[in-house]
Amino acid sequence: MENIFSDEYFMRKALQEAQVAFDRDEIPVGALIVSQNKIIAKTHNLTETLTDVTAHAEMQAITSAANYLGGKYLKDCTLYVTLEPCVMCAGALYWSQISRIVIGASDEKRGFRSQLVKLHPKTQITEGVLAKESTELIQKFFKDKR
Amino acid sequence: MENIFSDEYFMRKALQEAQVAFDRDEIPVGALIVSQNKIIAKTHNLTETLTDVTAHAEMQAITSAANYLGGKYLKDCTLYVTLEPCVMCAGALYWSQISRIVIGASDEKRGFRSQLVKLHPKTQITEGVLAKESTELIQKFFKDKR
Repeated sequence: MENIFSDEYFMRKALQEAQVAFDRDEIPVGALIVSQNKIIAKTHNLTETLTDVTAHAEMQAITSAANYLGGKYLKDCTLYVTLEPCVMCAGALYWSQISRIVIGASDEKRGFRSQLVKLHPKTQITEGVLAKESTELIQKFFKDKR
Repeated sequence: MENIFSDEYFMRKALQEAQVAFDRDEIPVGALIVSQNKIIAKTHNLTETLTDVTAHAEMQAITSAANYLGGKYLKDCTLYVTLEPCVMCAGALYWSQISRIVIGASDEKRGFRSQLVKLHPKTQITEGVLAKESTELIQKFFKDKR
């Protein structure tokens, strides 16, 4: 039997969160944290709503998952995020020692890799999962703004 | 008449916050955000208390100051922080476009400068203000832990 809990399965749920952000007039980025195939955090960008530059989807997901787990370190957890994390979020992910990060679209301008920021040695990366869908949503957002 | 609102004046208040963190068994880092000589945020590291790697003094100060100002951008604001910000906090400070950062002690291992992370072009840095006091408090914390 096929495992329904594929990276694409979870990234599609993260994209649904990005769509919620879009509908709230926020830059559409969504994130999930999954532990043992269970979604323990589901968040989207809220920087405008909260008037807070730190309210990226990933930051909220880290806080929320740690709260669920009762511990600071996100061992055996995977972050699914529709856009490559920025420097701030990569710095937070470093501290969290998260096991794995699955990225949708790359962010060549503001992504952590363009700034050569390193993740924790314990953290594995998978990228390009539903990248097209994520990119299209972000492009639609900025096109509508013009 | 001498201006009492010197960098040392505010850094001493940030050090008082670091002492509060120390007394709570947190790595002793304190921060203030000042706008027009008024303290609009006063925070200390709470990562253990909140079980949250994102609860650095600077992150809380950014959120708190933006809440006070009713806007995301920390224009004409100065952050006083007793220890050089990490990559996460520097990334957040970038997004905030804060005008100025005054640093106490340098953090050669985890500070943002060792990772070559850039702040916003609008942000000026002053460093080494009461660095000795900050370093001594941190060293005392880790010595007591051993």
